[in-house]
Formats: sequence, C-alpha cells, structure tokens
Amino acid sequence: MQINDNFYMKLAIDEAWKYQLLTYPNPAVGCVVVKKGELLAIEAHKEAGKPHAEVNALKAAFLKKHPNDCIKAISDSFKIHEYLINNHNNFFQDCTIYVTLEPCNHIGKTPSCAHLLKRLKPKKVVIAHKDINNIAKGGIETLKSENIDVSLGCMQKEAYELLYPFIQWSKGTFIFYKMAQTLNGSIDGQISSNQAKAYVHALRDKIDVLLIGGNTVRVDKPTLDARYVAGRAPNIFIYSKNKIFDNTIPLFKIPNREVIISDDLFKLLDYKFVMVEGIYHLMNALKEKIDYFILLVSPKIRNGINALNELNIDFEIVHENYIGEEKIIFLKRK
Amino acid sequence: MQINDNFYMKLAIDEAWKYQLLTYPNPAVGCVVVKKGELLAIEAHKEAGKPHAEVNALKAAFLKKHPNDCIKAISDSFKIHEYLINNHNNFFQDCTIYVTLEPCNHIGKTPSCAHLLKRLKPKKVVIAHKDINNIAKGGIETLKSENIDVSLGCMQKEAYELLYPFIQWSKGTFIFYKMAQTLNGSIDGQISSNQAKAYVHALRDKIDVLLIGGNTVRVDKPTLDARYVAGRAPNIFIYSKNKIFDNTIPLFKIPNREVIISDDLFKLLDYKFVMVEGIYHLMNALKEKIDYFILLVSPKIRNGINALNELNIDFEIVHENYIGEEKIIFLKRK
Repeated sequence: MQINDNFYMKLAIDEAWKYQLLTYPNPAVGCVVVKKGELLAIEAHKEAGKPHAEVNALKAAFLKKHPNDCIKAISDSFKIHEYLINNHNNFFQDCTIYVTLEPCNHIGKTPSCAHLLKRLKPKKVVIAHKDINNIAKGGIETLKSENIDVSLGCMQKEAYELLYPFIQWSKGTFIFYKMAQTLNGSIDGQISSNQAKAYVHALRDKIDVLLIGGNTVRVDKPTLDARYVAGRAPNIFIYSKNKIFDNTIPLFKIPNREVIISDDLFKLLDYKFVMVEGIYHLMNALKEKIDYFILLVSPKIRNGINALNELNIDFEIVHENYIGEEKIIFLKRK
Repeated sequence: MQINDNFYMKLAIDEAWKYQLLTYPNPAVGCVVVKKGELLAIEAHKEAGKPHAEVNALKAAFLKKHPNDCIKAISDSFKIHEYLINNHNNFFQDCTIYVTLEPCNHIGKTPSCAHLLKRLKPKKVVIAHKDINNIAKGGIETLKSENIDVSLGCMQKEAYELLYPFIQWSKGTFIFYKMAQTLNGSIDGQISSNQAKAYVHALRDKIDVLLIGGNTVRVDKPTLDARYVAGRAPNIFIYSKNKIFDNTIPLFKIPNREVIISDDLFKLLDYKFVMVEGIYHLMNALKEKIDYFILLVSPKIRNGINALNELNIDFEIVHENYIGEEKIIFLKRK
C-alpha cells in the first residue's frame, strides 16, 4: 500500500466521517498531523461550538511529544489557540498538516484556524477541498501570505462527499432517510441494538425536524425523542391528510416541541436539516428529494419483508462505519 | 484517535484481509514497518509461493528510504532475503515491525522470516497472534535468541479472525458460502459487477472444490470456471440424488476437472477448502458446517426475493471491504 499524501488524507476523512451530521450546522472536518514522517495526530471536529478539527489535531500532536504538558487540561478553543501560539516553540515548523477542508479564516464561535496555522508556521498544509462558505473562506490566502507551502485538491472527490451534507444545508435543505434492516433486508420487528438506537437519537438531537407518517404515529404511538443520548427531542412533521390525532400519543406530550401536521411536503424546504423515518409508501415520491439514505444493518437473517422492494434505485456507497456490531451505510442516489 | 501499537497493527490486519482466502493454503498475514515513528510500509502476503508479509514490508520500507535501490527489481523471496541481509546496513535497527502472525521459523517455499529478522535486528517486533502451525512455529524464540524485543498479543482477537480460515483448513475443512444480493436483499437476476465476478473467480481459482446444487446445474447450465482471472477451473461437487445430467452442459466440458455427483455431503470433509454457491434449500442443513458467509452486496434496491428469509441466523461481521463500488462482507455465525 502506498503511504503518501492520499493515505494521510484518507485517515483524516475517515475520522471526520465518525461525526458526520453530528457537527450540524458545521461541516464534518478531519485533520492529521505528520512531523518529519511521524504520524502524531488524527482528529476531527465533533460538534458545533467545540474545537475545529485542526485545533484538536494540533493539540493532540503537541501532546504526543509533550505528554505531561498542561495543554492536556485545556478544552476551550480560544484557550487552545492562545496556548499554542504562546508555547509552540517552533514545534510545528517541520510538520505537514492534512485537513479535509480549507482552514476557516474568520472568528465565529471558535477562532480562525488559518490564523492559528499562520502563527504556528507548519512546513506544509495539504487541503482536500476549498471552503464553500463565503464567511469562512480565504484560509489559503492567509496561509500563503506567511509563505506556508499549501497544496489543494488531494482526495478532493472523497472530501466533497464528506462536505456534501454541509453544502446542501448551507444552500437549502439536506434531507436524509434513516432505515434499519437485517442483512437479508427484513424490516420487521425490533432490529437495532441499543447502540444503534443511541446513534439515531444523537441524530434526532441535531436535526431541525423529523418527518414521519400519520399512520405510523397512529399505530406505533411513538415518543420520538432523544432519550438514549439525553438529547433534545426534535420537532415533528407528521405527514397526514387527516389532521385529527389522539393527543395522548406520547410524542404530543413532549414540552417545547413543535408538531406540524400537514400533507404539504414542500413545507420541508423551510428547514435545513431533515430526517425521515418510516413512511415507506412515500419513498417513491420523495426519492428525488432525499440526499442520503442512511441504512443501519444488523448482521442477522430474519424472515420478513423489505418495504423498499417496489423501488428501483441505484446508489453509491459514500461511506460506512460500524456502530458496535452493526453497520451504518451512507448511500447517495447515483 | 489513539496512534499506538493497536493502530499500526490494525493497518497490518486490514491490509492482510485484502488477500483473505487468496493465500490458500497459507494464512493471510499483514505487516507494518515503523522507523523512529515514521510509517514506512504496510504490506501483506498475497499468494502462496510469493513473499511473506514481512518480506514485502521490509522491502517496501527499505525502498521508501532508498527509492532507487536495485532491490526494487527483486521479487523472489530468497533473493530479497539475501539482498537485505547483505545490504541492510543497520537500516532496521531503529524500526518496529508489526506482524499479524508470529514470523515463520522454517524454510518452505520461501525462507524463514524469523531468521531474516534475526539478521536485520529490528528494535522491536510486535506480534498479534502466535503461529499454530507445528512446522513453522518457534519464530518468537528465534527472535528472542538475538535479544530482539518481542511483544505478543496486540489485537489478538482481530488477528485470530484473520487467521481463522487457516486454522480451519489446517486441521480439517474450511467451508464458505458465497452469495450476491442487492441492498434490500434481492437475489434475483444479474446482481454483481464484473469486478465482483472477477473476485469470485479468483476464489474459484484457489478452492479445492465448489459445491453446487443439481437443480442449478440443470436449469442454469453453468460453466463454473475462473475465466475472469484466467484461473484454474475448480473441481465441482454437484449435490444431487439423481445422478443423470445432460453432459452437454458447459461445466462438464472443462478439461482436467473432476466432477463429483453425490448426495453425501460428508464427502465434503475430504477437502480442505470448499466454496458453496446457490443451493439455498440446503442452507438450513448446512448452516452448522459453514464457517463463513461471504456476502457480495450491490448498492441498489431491486424488487425480488431473498432466498435466505426462512433462516434465522445471527452473525458477526468479521471484516468487510469494497470491491469497486460493491461491498464484500465476511460473516461468521455467532
């Protein structure tokens, strides 16, 4: 196997995918630090408001060589920036930084990564994809102004796939469909493990609205909250022509939750980040609008039907991971 | 992400999985070389008779730092050994070698890796799993006799899974079932890409015998060769009570092929490496005997049935890879 820029960038991309969608409204970003050939850090941005991938990776790299340094206890982005600027002692000058997205150039919830890198002066910054955010972009120019060697375009296609949800919700709406099935495609009964359910709840905690079918609400009487991660219960969009529901159904009991009952799917475009569960009969109508299918696959064979059999769709697997013993597969329509 | 011994061993394990089953009768083995923290090589054993993982990795590591060295042109195992022993110039003395299986201690089709390492004197050899082969084992003692630091047991569980087919065929018979399906579990019609078919043919080229059902032979009239990889057509075991077949069916026309027609499945135990295709009605009877299910998954949704629906099996995913745009999943019964 070739150990080159692509290899290190792939490590950064794979690390970022672990937090895909969970960084909303930020993009998922990964970063790798290599010092004189030695791999020091593989980190990612994990959640909006928390340190960017570069900051996590620079801190981890510094710590790898100074294991008892007091930076260990610093978690606030501004403070890590400040600490590294004051204490780097040219540590990064023989480092190559691999980052999946152009370092941000502006001060938002966290300070600018491009300006931090400008001060730390790494030997080289390898960037997979240019920033598409008008506010944050310009990082490359900032780095170049300090004569830092910048390379752009390594693993660009893979980085684009990583960035894709961010691109969609930045310019409009990102809609994904979540489904759990067994290996042989059965969707009947209890399928997912608690670990997979916790992941779904982590997603629910982040989304703007959850689309669900009226029939599912009437039959399953779900709660649709994020209790497995002690998270925020999402707002609910019930797709239903009949607007009358039994208001003792648990989902209506959640405080501070908005519930929309509508049969106008165009209203979904008022939101930026939408998750769809169930409503298989709508899949054919929705399929052109759905950006991702997220399939949770439990490695077992069970007798049962697959609700999607009537569809005829070709996908590209954009990524996949394990969630415990199960699989999560991110699919995009071809 | 932690960058530690487990991280490097995982790179070795994943590389080895790319050649899983294709190394028959040898085990799949991976090897990583790290020199003063710098990752120099990730290699694997690719085919019986070709260099072992350690040899491929040591050569690649040496080449990484001596890109124009004439070792580049040497592919024979004995010659690589000889060249490295004469020209290493203490290159490996600050290297850590990660290897998924204890280096072999005997001279077979290729020379002993333990004796090569003994001469190259790396700083440390990290081994995931002890050799189970009575002829080849003893590598650790050989290394220790030269005062090389040896660590055993890093990622042992994962290395055991990698070694599992070898363990099975070494002591008896390894049987795997190969199936192709769409995402939603349909097995109808043409499913796999040419790339996935080439992989199946590469497997057919290695196996001792291919088990197939009589009905499939009568209806599909298959050839069951390995033409996609210009490989050896495997011997065929047709499971059938009725021993009469139309001998114009292509599979009977292949020269130098043995065809057994029998309804005695115990005869399979005369072979070491058996692949099963089709015969879904036998799956339930066979399920206790099958070591691996190998599932080729094409990322598309199609209307169709899944022939395994009547089974009720829990699996562990032991590994998976991409074959082009498709997936290959290695499953073991829980």
